[in-house]
Amino acid sequence: MTRPLISLAALLALAAPSFAQEASPAPPSPAEIVDQAPADEWFAIPPEDLLVMTLAPAADGSERKVVIQLMPAPFSQGWVENIRTLARANWYDGISVNRVQDNYVVQWGDPNYDNPEADGPAKPLPEGLQVPNSDAVISTPYTLSVDEDLFPITWTDAGRHEFGSTYGSANIPWPDARNPVRITGPYASSYSFNSGFPFALGFPFGLQFRIAPTKPMIAWPVHCYGMVGVGRGMSPDTGTGAELYTVIGHAPRHLDRNIALVGRVVEGMEHLSSLPRGKGQLGFYEDEAMRTPILTVRVAADLPASERPSFEYLATDGASFARYAEARANRRDPFFIVPAGGADICNIPVPVRRTGSE
Amino acid sequence: MTRPLISLAALLALAAPSFAQEASPAPPSPAEIVDQAPADEWFAIPPEDLLVMTLAPAADGSERKVVIQLMPAPFSQGWVENIRTLARANWYDGISVNRVQDNYVVQWGDPNYDNPEADGPAKPLPEGLQVPNSDAVISTPYTLSVDEDLFPITWTDAGRHEFGSTYGSANIPWPDARNPVRITGPYASSYSFNSGFPFALGFPFGLQFRIAPTKPMIAWPVHCYGMVGVGRGMSPDTGTGAELYTVIGHAPRHLDRNIALVGRVVEGMEHLSSLPRGKGQLGFYEDEAMRTPILTVRVAADLPASERPSFEYLATDGASFARYAEARANRRDPFFIVPAGGADICNIPVPVRRTGSE
Repeated sequence: MTRPLISLAALLALAAPSFAQEASPAPPSPAEIVDQAPADEWFAIPPEDLLVMTLAPAADGSERKVVIQLMPAPFSQGWVENIRTLARANWYDGISVNRVQDNYVVQWGDPNYDNPEADGPAKPLPEGLQVPNSDAVISTPYTLSVDEDLFPITWTDAGRHEFGSTYGSANIPWPDARNPVRITGPYASSYSFNSGFPFALGFPFGLQFRIAPTKPMIAWPVHCYGMVGVGRGMSPDTGTGAELYTVIGHAPRHLDRNIALVGRVVEGMEHLSSLPRGKGQLGFYEDEAMRTPILTVRVAADLPASERPSFEYLATDGASFARYAEARANRRDPFFIVPAGGADICNIPVPVRRTGSE
Repeated sequence: MTRPLISLAALLALAAPSFAQEASPAPPSPAEIVDQAPADEWFAIPPEDLLVMTLAPAADGSERKVVIQLMPAPFSQGWVENIRTLARANWYDGISVNRVQDNYVVQWGDPNYDNPEADGPAKPLPEGLQVPNSDAVISTPYTLSVDEDLFPITWTDAGRHEFGSTYGSANIPWPDARNPVRITGPYASSYSFNSGFPFALGFPFGLQFRIAPTKPMIAWPVHCYGMVGVGRGMSPDTGTGAELYTVIGHAPRHLDRNIALVGRVVEGMEHLSSLPRGKGQLGFYEDEAMRTPILTVRVAADLPASERPSFEYLATDGASFARYAEARANRRDPFFIVPAGGADICNIPVPVRRTGSE
């Protein structure tokens, strides 16, 4: 028997960001703000930047597809290009998910790679892969376009305390009608006063200003839930992109600037996050029958139009995103008693929606 | 065929906090610090504070037990006492996991409770439940014992900027040999300057000082991965404890001070976090056959000694915890390139270990 089970109390108790609330007479919920965003604030994700990973069917025979958005330039482009090369060589076809560690990561790759107990030799890599260096992991020079009407961050030294004085934490003052949200955190940097966590190009980043108020700054993508990164050995090895992982728990931000992030899962995350946890060290499967086979990984641009998924994201420098972030930080839904007054960058997920070839 | 699959590169690439590193000539890893903690820094969890929840066996017939530690006094005791009453009335036996929402929560309770499409009437609750009010959700007056050698937080107004000047963010200065870790975040409060995130009684808390440097302050437990909370309807209803949830994704800190937290999962979290995600609104299962039955929930103190699990946690006001937190914030394992210089409170999980009746 199939029917919806919706407990009213439960619905109200834990209302989620992805569902609009019933009856909100006063300020709109985060989901309502996203729903009302004008079309020109939604940006299409280029099909060159979408990967479609097809896992073996589930136990009940249902299809399992995971769609990954690759990181836009100028970030992590060495690995991103390698990943396209690997996908176009069909190299990923036949590898598997080998590791599922609770509250940490799901990792996939060649199970015989660099494994002393492997059944056979590692799968040869295709020609033409780049060897990015660790500078590109740590940070990327970047000029952030700040709309000062939306995020009027004070760059000046005099504004330093206002902005967040101590050791890498950035507080956009709150409450202040001109400042829609306060974003702060401990991870930006321990080497700079003026550091923050903005959104740009549809992704969340950590920032560091070498000497305020100069621009450009350096920036790096951050390890939020669903972000995809590149497994590697000891530095200066930075990995090729043949072994990848995604975050399935609380943001492991100590990995920021230590491993290259190359994108995020935009659909099908549940096919990875609900896999059985491995019982071996670090969540590797001790029983190789537990591994989930990966049938194919394709660049969406290479698929026939009828099979090509398309997605768009809400512009992170637009008015709707600013309102959305503010509402995430200050829930005014009737259920809430005390608004938080702030939000962790990983608790402001960038809205992404499917637009075609369901 | 069952054999360990441990890829060396993968091991190094994503070394987890719960496993000691091979060969660390220099500073110990967080896991090594925990392993080396003296016995007198480990505190036993009272068997009255442990719940053993037995789910129906997995598809392969294996047992699924989840152990929950209830919140210590003075926090959330109205609900905690209700939960013991419900468990001792065997009320939880036969309810089910009804909701699994990716990157959010797993929720369990009576599927017919407050459900317009229920198959039958709601299960009657036992006598003697308390009706806690929302003041107890929002915060609890608490006198924190701060060891100033470990966490020499400056309470004075002059020290306010040093401590974190802006809007609820608390920065314990870093680096400074006297200050082992910098803990900060946006969620403490928007109503007070001096607010922070300490650990106490083995749990993480948010704090608010009404007027620095007075004590006591008010404190509230925070929504980290694995924390257990009480489903409720609209305020002032605060729930009874008959419907519970646990966090299976990035910390949903906007729920802090809005829902009562009553404990955390200390073992068997993977049996909840890896459940298939519900396809209905908010992750409720549309197909009731997807619900996971809960066979029994027992207070550990009521179990025969041979079946009674026992656990202990690392004292959160001890020297080892301070070193552990510092090492979590500044990974010096050979793998790491750039230490974060800080850590989110939910990325410093309190070490808990089993001590008996495996």
